[in-house]
Amino acid sequence: MRQAGTNLPKVGQYNRAVVLGRIQLADGISRVEIAELTGLTPQTVSGIVRRLIDEGIVREDGTRMSTGGKPRTVLQINPDAGRAVGVHFDPVRLTCVVVDLLGRPLVMRQRPTPPRSDPAAITAAMTELVDDVLAAAGVGRDRVLGLGLAAPGPIDHATGEIVGPPQLHNWARVPLKRMLADATGLPVSLDNDATAAAVGERWAGAGRGVANFAYFFLGTGVGGGLILGHQVHRGGSMNAAEFGHTSIRPDGPGCYCGNPGCLESLISPVALGTEARRRLAAGERTPGSPLDVLSGGDPAAVDHDMLCRAAAQGDPLAVAIIDAAAEALASVAVNVVNIVDVDLVVLGGYGIRHVETRYRRAVEQALVTRPLARNVRTASVEISPLGPDAAVVGGAALVLHDTFSPRVSELLSL
Amino acid sequence: MRQAGTNLPKVGQYNRAVVLGRIQLADGISRVEIAELTGLTPQTVSGIVRRLIDEGIVREDGTRMSTGGKPRTVLQINPDAGRAVGVHFDPVRLTCVVVDLLGRPLVMRQRPTPPRSDPAAITAAMTELVDDVLAAAGVGRDRVLGLGLAAPGPIDHATGEIVGPPQLHNWARVPLKRMLADATGLPVSLDNDATAAAVGERWAGAGRGVANFAYFFLGTGVGGGLILGHQVHRGGSMNAAEFGHTSIRPDGPGCYCGNPGCLESLISPVALGTEARRRLAAGERTPGSPLDVLSGGDPAAVDHDMLCRAAAQGDPLAVAIIDAAAEALASVAVNVVNIVDVDLVVLGGYGIRHVETRYRRAVEQALVTRPLARNVRTASVEISPLGPDAAVVGGAALVLHDTFSPRVSELLSL
Repeated sequence: MRQAGTNLPKVGQYNRAVVLGRIQLADGISRVEIAELTGLTPQTVSGIVRRLIDEGIVREDGTRMSTGGKPRTVLQINPDAGRAVGVHFDPVRLTCVVVDLLGRPLVMRQRPTPPRSDPAAITAAMTELVDDVLAAAGVGRDRVLGLGLAAPGPIDHATGEIVGPPQLHNWARVPLKRMLADATGLPVSLDNDATAAAVGERWAGAGRGVANFAYFFLGTGVGGGLILGHQVHRGGSMNAAEFGHTSIRPDGPGCYCGNPGCLESLISPVALGTEARRRLAAGERTPGSPLDVLSGGDPAAVDHDMLCRAAAQGDPLAVAIIDAAAEALASVAVNVVNIVDVDLVVLGGYGIRHVETRYRRAVEQALVTRPLARNVRTASVEISPLGPDAAVVGGAALVLHDTFSPRVSELLSL
Repeated sequence: MRQAGTNLPKVGQYNRAVVLGRIQLADGISRVEIAELTGLTPQTVSGIVRRLIDEGIVREDGTRMSTGGKPRTVLQINPDAGRAVGVHFDPVRLTCVVVDLLGRPLVMRQRPTPPRSDPAAITAAMTELVDDVLAAAGVGRDRVLGLGLAAPGPIDHATGEIVGPPQLHNWARVPLKRMLADATGLPVSLDNDATAAAVGERWAGAGRGVANFAYFFLGTGVGGGLILGHQVHRGGSMNAAEFGHTSIRPDGPGCYCGNPGCLESLISPVALGTEARRRLAAGERTPGSPLDVLSGGDPAAVDHDMLCRAAAQGDPLAVAIIDAAAEALASVAVNVVNIVDVDLVVLGGYGIRHVETRYRRAVEQALVTRPLARNVRTASVEISPLGPDAAVVGGAALVLHDTFSPRVSELLSL
């Protein structure tokens, strides 16, 4: 990464994105308020707003009184000025959504991922799904700004290739971005699912307008995304925010990542299911308990979903296991706050389904008592409002982000 | 933190800093090369360079052949165009340095910090020290760009106050920045010692030109600094990079920070000295070993410095203790790399004196084997060339950084 200068066309693009971002975040805002909030001159703001109105992206929405009594025209995003498509590619299922400019889902569909990991078959299935969703939403291709693909990492951002995700055997380097663009005729943005989900939170979820936040994606594994200074932080090799592979126990189980006692090895659904079965087999089974009832009395039948449901019903063993997992997550959240000093921690993904409040409480409690700067201010905790849909909505948000967000990297790119 | 737009005067300032930064990093560079590296037009570069030459900050330094055979004028910083003063305020001693524009120390002096933590007496002592150093260097006040004060945190950046550092009793909120500016007549920049040291590494040390690096300051405690995307990352509450208080052992000793098993509680000089005495008292004493010789056979006399000297001489117990500490540091370095994905880890401070290579080796080994993205690329490790002087040189570098570095925060400030 070079440290580049900037020039006038880029400054104009950037300021336009800043103004648009202000309008998107506010529920009605005037030109004067935008100028105050952005430091831009009223003339610059007026010029940008005029063009946004001409393009139909922004609309005037009545007036309201300012404190001085002078009526001011209120501006809002026109959510129908464009559509974005999101695709979440998971080894088990494909999900597709079409959203409006505010990131609100209009239609969402799922189907199983074709077996045998064949890239051509998967691309064809994605394309059919995109067609289905657009048809169901009554959206023509000409109104679609682009398609955002959220995929399991690692991803080579330079080439748009998926680089051998753990669950897809024989996928050395699949140029899925190009394949999907060719098949759908849409411009495709590609990012890993956790980063996409974080962008979704920034655009339409818990992270709207928050300068610095960390997003924890709890799914098959534990991924993450970081927004620092309003920008997606990707790091020097585009691999930042791997919260799941930070180590918090030198004597913990070894992970495929190479680290002992990393968060994912301690709290993934597989790890927690195994832990539950181990403790049940070791004699902690309580006949008639929620976990016992859900598993039909068969300890070997217990899986992660059952464990979480049982914990939600107050099953003591399930609660103990989930609370220990939440404590491990809380430790990593404290480390993240001590290292990057975020304002907010967002928890999302299907891995905390049924037990969201237990996880949230543990992280909140830790952030109040453990980070060094807790007396200066406490980072807050939110459960993702996008929930398990964060990755697919995030896919669509990648398009909105690329099209509309003020990105310093673009301002300063060569 | 707001997301602000930018405007022409700021763009001009920013581009000037980008050009100057390029000249500072290179050992001779032409206008054409600067344009290529920064994305600025040749005309813009020429205009900026002309003004920098007029101001005496940059000078032409002969010509050399380009690949096309056309001779190009080579530009260099004029290190004598200005001076900066750095002060490191430590509860035990005060250090003061005057540096040239390349951050090279010209004169450095130390004296004990006046006792009883009296802010007025400390300010007076600092002022005398600044006068001494400027006189010894033959530098008039008119040639000094400013004074950078590196102080123990936490610091309130809004007010320039030192907010009750652990070792300075009764220091609730001391406006040291204003007091020192009044006493010396110089503009004062204030930052915590670890951040200042990281800025020093960026300006004149191991981090020159590195886009993303983490600096570990191993002193009385374990502090840190983060440079992300060429910018000092301070975080939402200005408290980022507290690497020393990230937890890596849930069953470890409790720290005043609130965290169990945080790095500082495991590897601070006090902790390591205590551990050495404990193990010696428990029977691990080997008569005639380096540690035994250094301590005169008295386990109670062993301190951290002795431990490190003994480890450097191969004392088995000292080596075991230092290697365990280096392993703990390596775990945190892996976590930092997994979270923010830096290109480089810099180790500095007097806490690793005599045993630099043991710490370096442990961190290097961990970064090759444990971060998730290690197959994409490996972060490198450097021992700070500024060593124990990093904080005071960093203090002076704060001034150079504020005066000359391209800061996105300034480009986008309101």
